[in-house]
Parts: sequence; structure tokens; C-alpha cells
Amino acid sequence: MSGPGVSKQLATWISSCRPEDIPENVKQDGLRSFVNWLGCAVGGSAHAATKSSLAALRPYAGAPQASVIGHRVRLDALNAAFVNGVSSHILDFDDTHLRTILHPTGPVAAAALAMAEARGLSGSDLLNGMIVGVETECRIANAICPEHYDAGWHITGTAGVFGATTAVARLINLDAKRTNYALGLAATQASGLREMFATMGKSFHVGSAAKNGIGAALLAEQGFESSEQSIEAPFGFANVMSTKQDLLEVTSDLGNRWETSKNAFKPFACGIVLHPIIDCCLQLSQKFPFCENEIDTVSVRSNPLVLKLAGNISPRNGLEAKLSVFHAAAVALLRGDGSPTAYTDEIVSDEDIIALGKRITVISEPTISISSAECSVLLKGGRVLSQSVEFAVGGYERPMTNQELEQKFIKQAAAILGQSPAERLLESSWNLRSVVNLQDMAPQLTGPL
Amino acid sequence: MSGPGVSKQLATWISSCRPEDIPENVKQDGLRSFVNWLGCAVGGSAHAATKSSLAALRPYAGAPQASVIGHRVRLDALNAAFVNGVSSHILDFDDTHLRTILHPTGPVAAAALAMAEARGLSGSDLLNGMIVGVETECRIANAICPEHYDAGWHITGTAGVFGATTAVARLINLDAKRTNYALGLAATQASGLREMFATMGKSFHVGSAAKNGIGAALLAEQGFESSEQSIEAPFGFANVMSTKQDLLEVTSDLGNRWETSKNAFKPFACGIVLHPIIDCCLQLSQKFPFCENEIDTVSVRSNPLVLKLAGNISPRNGLEAKLSVFHAAAVALLRGDGSPTAYTDEIVSDEDIIALGKRITVISEPTISISSAECSVLLKGGRVLSQSVEFAVGGYERPMTNQELEQKFIKQAAAILGQSPAERLLESSWNLRSVVNLQDMAPQLTGPL
Repeated sequence: MSGPGVSKQLATWISSCRPEDIPENVKQDGLRSFVNWLGCAVGGSAHAATKSSLAALRPYAGAPQASVIGHRVRLDALNAAFVNGVSSHILDFDDTHLRTILHPTGPVAAAALAMAEARGLSGSDLLNGMIVGVETECRIANAICPEHYDAGWHITGTAGVFGATTAVARLINLDAKRTNYALGLAATQASGLREMFATMGKSFHVGSAAKNGIGAALLAEQGFESSEQSIEAPFGFANVMSTKQDLLEVTSDLGNRWETSKNAFKPFACGIVLHPIIDCCLQLSQKFPFCENEIDTVSVRSNPLVLKLAGNISPRNGLEAKLSVFHAAAVALLRGDGSPTAYTDEIVSDEDIIALGKRITVISEPTISISSAECSVLLKGGRVLSQSVEFAVGGYERPMTNQELEQKFIKQAAAILGQSPAERLLESSWNLRSVVNLQDMAPQLTGPL
Repeated sequence: MSGPGVSKQLATWISSCRPEDIPENVKQDGLRSFVNWLGCAVGGSAHAATKSSLAALRPYAGAPQASVIGHRVRLDALNAAFVNGVSSHILDFDDTHLRTILHPTGPVAAAALAMAEARGLSGSDLLNGMIVGVETECRIANAICPEHYDAGWHITGTAGVFGATTAVARLINLDAKRTNYALGLAATQASGLREMFATMGKSFHVGSAAKNGIGAALLAEQGFESSEQSIEAPFGFANVMSTKQDLLEVTSDLGNRWETSKNAFKPFACGIVLHPIIDCCLQLSQKFPFCENEIDTVSVRSNPLVLKLAGNISPRNGLEAKLSVFHAAAVALLRGDGSPTAYTDEIVSDEDIIALGKRITVISEPTISISSAECSVLLKGGRVLSQSVEFAVGGYERPMTNQELEQKFIKQAAAILGQSPAERLLESSWNLRSVVNLQDMAPQLTGPL
């Protein structure tokens, strides 16, 4: 479907969307996204990927404008956004726009928070920028998915840079024409290959999208020009990077239909496709407290995408384990765990979990939906324990409550910051809209690392 | 054609190629590329695209590690590389790997020079890094072109980031494994849409590739991991971004066949596809000094790619004029000019040139090669002047001599730096291999802007 003027229409909307144009329920959903994201960014701040990013970039970074979350460091806004982007995605624990499997908040919040802090903007402006950014990236993703993703693109990188660019363009008040140039510079930076999955390279996409989005908006602010039809042109983003271009998805009902309200938060720290199975296994392990050596074999029935995306039989480290149905099911059954501690490098080499993983059979069943799974455990005595899940926890049908989000936040943040600072940061996050100047939050965002 | 282990083989070669492994004639060719590139980077340093890049990024840049060419400014290596990359390509005057239409030196030299200066490396190491970088990007381009370019990708951006990454990985002595991780981070940053052509966005690709290549190498240096088969994997660079994957092009005869020696330098400051036509028109204007108002109509016969890539009838500014056969022919005939002064915003609005452009007919002729053209001028008195060119000046068959490169360098550099500093910089550039520490060249690289 062609879309003349799509980039221009989108830029015009972005440049004119004010906080008062966004319904209160959407703002609440945006706030949930921010709280969830910030907890994940703190949680990932001690990961080797985050630390090596910081070690690599710090000698080249500029003035201390923006906080590196969890670290006793502030960097220029672009480098801070990169590190925070990596940090927030490295545990694969953030959020998912289920229709497109885009993880929407990472690129957008990492960019927007850094720029809001650098320019001393308010929490209300930050939330506005984030919601407009998420709207843009999810709509662009809707226009090209699933074909774009199926071709090998990591949508969180490719659409994410539009989200980050949009959020910053809105935050720094670019007019429609410069917003459109910024979108052009986003389009021409769109990148991220699925080959990076199960490596640090996957989180690199989130950091890059955030940093590159800031760069696009800053250049446009200073008069750097690009195409005015970068999304829809014959050699523009949608045609070059996808075989599907349903560009009405980008512009229809702008300002009335909100993708931020379709965001879902992860209860488990791994690929979203594994969540129904983990949900099954955790329910089984809670209902029937069996011993480690009591299990004979396990049979899982799931949507074919599970083996396609997460069929790794022998993960070598925590990042690979996040896309291994065998590890995810084994660790959920034996340890009752789906949190980040279930996906460390250490636990991947646990002999009991490896041994159980080898006794798990996964059957692809096209009739089972992506949000469902069935799991049967055959005990050595011959008893069979079964559990099915129709809608995995964390999905649209069983969304995480605010209380569950808070528990998730505190569990991650307390481990890095300590209990009291974690609780104070959580409170500040819920109160984002009352923050007059994001620089006032810096002492809470940085940490002991 | 499949290529198991291509990324690994390439990384192994990159990490082991020393100056003594490169033949002297290749080094001379590499030096010509450097001299030509540096002249163009000085020449573009006063352009609005360069100035707006600098204005946008300077407030976010780090310590003064690397020179911004032509400006009284040094920035951190990544930001300096970005600005110098933009500067070196904005006049469309740099160089061309004719088989792939890749402009090879921009991404590579912008990255390598900035990092060599930042770390105080030698000119010999810099030249080595650049030659290995150009080799990598051109081989990767050979493997996927022309299909990749035809699909809408700007090869200078997409392959360029591999070149920049490679040059820096070599310069900072990454081992084979980390070089391969750096290549992975290059692959997953590969981007750049042809929709940006005729806008500042085209040069943005060169700056981005340079900056992103440095980032990839720096992260890998600190242990940031990615894929070890990023080029050849099913969801890797070649498969996702091209329908052609002739991966033997990447690895065959590595260290024996050198793409640096296949680089061509532009005598005219516009799209390479226009060069045969400009060559014709300049010869005509020199042979027959006709008056401006003496020309009735002009007929050009050329390869169909000319109208396809450069068929803009009404360019609105200098950048659009660089892809307008009508402007290029008119300004060559009336002003005898193909240099940057023929493509300013001012001259594009010259009424005589616009009027002549409207009287030019371009006939696509598949039998005419891409390096050839024919041009006929009908004078008002009825006389017809004709000229044909079989091999355009600057191509493989009629390469620019060192003396012509020097004239090109001085013409650009003197306008920015003044005559004497331009001559000294030219001399230093030819003597690159005797520079012990690139930081010693900084006072010559920076300038009065």
C-alpha cells in the first residue's frame, strides 16, 4: 500500500503533539513502561556488556551531561544513552509490543532520558517525548512486520531508531520540517541483524538506536538536511527493508489509537516466545514440589516459533540460554526461577540443569498459539504431571499489575543500589510527572558501580 | 555461493596483515588515495553540511584527540571522524571503486586518521590500516553488488562501515577473535539508503560509517562480543541485505589481489556517471570557444544509467545538481567547469545555465558503455559540433596522474587554508610514511574555519 506524504504527515504530528493531547490512561501506560524500563536498566548495569561499553566509550565521551544508570558516572548524552540502552536490554527482561515483537521502550527511553537530563527538561516533557516516540516506532513496525522481521531484521534496532529520533525531536521542540529531516536521518541509520541474537550484539542495537536517534535530532536541529520522504520513497526505508509496506498503519488515526497502551512487560528474563512454557513449568514446580532427581522426562507442546527462535540445545552462556527452550524449562522446573538469576553464565553450566535439558522434548504444534503452551513431566515412579497455559502471564490477557512491576523493579534495583535507594528511585519514577528538571534525578539514577 | 567461515578467515587476515605484507606499488596507490581524500576533506570543510555537523556535535564531544580538518577544532576521535567523513564526501569529489560505485576512502580514512591521531600512531601504520580497510570493504561490496546497490542501498555506507571497522581494528592491533567481533558490530550497523542521494544525507553515510567503525573496534577491544559469522550467516549481512552473496569474492586471493589499486579519482565534483559527458562537453568548450547565446540545442547520447541515476531536470541546489546531467552538461559547456565551483547553490540558479539545461536532450543508448558518451551541440547558425569520449578521464584507462591529483588538492586546500599551508600539507601527505606520530600533523590538518 503506497503512502504519499507519510513521512511529512508523521513529522507534522510529532512536532505538534503536546502533553495535553495525550489521554490520561495512555500517560499511565507510558509511566508503567518507564518504571519497568528503568528497573531493567538498573538490573543490567553490572553486566559485562554494559561494563565493556562504558570502558570502551568513556575515554572518548564528552561533558558529564547525562547519568549512566547504576554507575558513578555521567557522560555526554549520546554515550550515556548508548550505555543505558545496552544495560536496559541485556537481561532480555524489558518489554514487548507483542504484535511486532519490538521491545519499544529501550531505544526511546534511553535517548529521551539522556537528552532530558542534558537539557534540564521536565518529567512531563520526558513522558510526552517517550509516548510520541513509542507511537512512531510501533506504527512503523506495524507497517512492515512480520515480513521485515522474518527477513532477518531485528525490529528493535530498525524501528527503534525512529522511536529514539522522534522522542528527542519532540523533546527539543524541532519544527515539522526539521523533524522530517531527523526522521530521514533515522531511516538511513536503520540497522540491526537477527544474527546478533544470543550475543551482546542484540543489546548493542538498543544502545545504537538510542544514540543514533539523538544524533539525528541534533543534526536536524542545526540545519542538516536529508530526504523529506524517507519512509515511503522508492529507495526509502519501507521499500528497501521490507516486502510489506502497509503505510496506512503509520498515519491512520494518529492521536486517537495509542500503541503505548499495547505494550507488555516481561515477567521472565528471556525471549518472549518462551514465556508460556516457563509459566507452565513454574506452575508445575509450585504445585508439585518434586525432587531434582525425580524427573524422568519432560514433554513440551508449543507453537512452532519456539523451536525456530529458541531451539538452542546447548547454550554456552547466559545470553544464549535466553533463547533456549531446554534451559528455560529445566531451570523453571528445577529452581522455580524465570528471573535474571535463571540466566547467568554460572547456572548455564549447572550439571543438573544441563542433564534435565537433555531429557526435554519439544513438539511443535501449529494449532497452539504463541501465547499458549502445554507441559507434561513424567516422574521416575511413572506419575505424569501436566499443566497448560492459555495466556502466558505478562501478555495482554494477564498483564503484570503495578504491584508486580514494583516487585520486579525492586528485585533488580536493590541488588545494585541497595534496598532503600531502590525504593526511593521507584517512588521517583512513579512521580516522574512532578519532576521539574531531570537533572534533579541524577543522584538517584547513578549508583555505586 | 555459500561461504562457511568467511568472517573468521577475513578477521584472521586483517589481524595479521603487516606493512611488510603489502607490495610497494599498492602502498603507492594507497598513498594516492590518501592524498586525494585529504584534499577533498579540506575542500568540503566550509560546506554547510560540515558546519552544521560540527555545530550539532561539538557540545557533546569529548577530549581534543583528533583534528577536524580545516577547522580550528579538535574533538574526540569518533566525532572528529564523523565530521571529516561528511566533509570529505559532501562535494562528491572523492574517489570511486568503479566495479561497485563504492567511494572507498571516505569511511576508512576518516576513521583511521582520527584514531591514529588519538593514539599517536605512525603514518606507516595509518597507511597499512587504510589499505586493509579498503580491501575489506571493496571485497564485501564485490560479493553483493550490483544487486545490493540496485535494491536501494548506498554501498558507501553499508560496506563502508566494514572498511572503517577493519582499518581501526588493524590500527589498534585487535587479535583475530576481537577483530571478528568488531566485524560483527560493523555488519549489524550497516545502513544507508539511496533515498538520501542529492541531500546532505548522502555524506552523512560516510561520517556515520567512519564513526560507527571506530565504535565497533573500540567495543570489541574491551571485550564486547557479537556474532562470529556475521557476514555469511543465514540472518547475517550478505543474506539479509542482498539477493547476491558471492562470498568467495571476500576471501579468494587475500593478500595477493589488491582492491586499493583499483581505486579511481574524480576529476569532476559530481556523480561518477556524469563524468564521460562532462569530459565531452569540456573538450567541446575548449576546442570551439562559442558564446553563451550561440547554442541552440544540445544532444547527449549515454548509457541508460545516466538518466536513471542523474536525470534531475530542475535541481534546486548544488547537491541536487551533482546528480543532474542537464546541469552538468550546461555548466561544462558554458563555463568550462566540472570542479566544485560548478556545483554551488548560486550557480544552480544562474539563468543562462538553467535555460541551456532545458535545451539539452539526453538519449539513453544501451550500447554505450558507462565510461563513454557522445555530445553534439547545434549552434544557432546551423553548425553542429560533436565530440565523443570512449574512456572518461579519471577512469582506469585514463587515470589521474600524481600531478593532476596535486592540482586538485591545491585548488581545494588553498581556498580554505591559503596557498603556502596547502602546499605544506600536500607535501606532508605524500610523506605520510615518514610521520612518526600523527599528532605531529595536527597543526597542519586543522585550519582557520
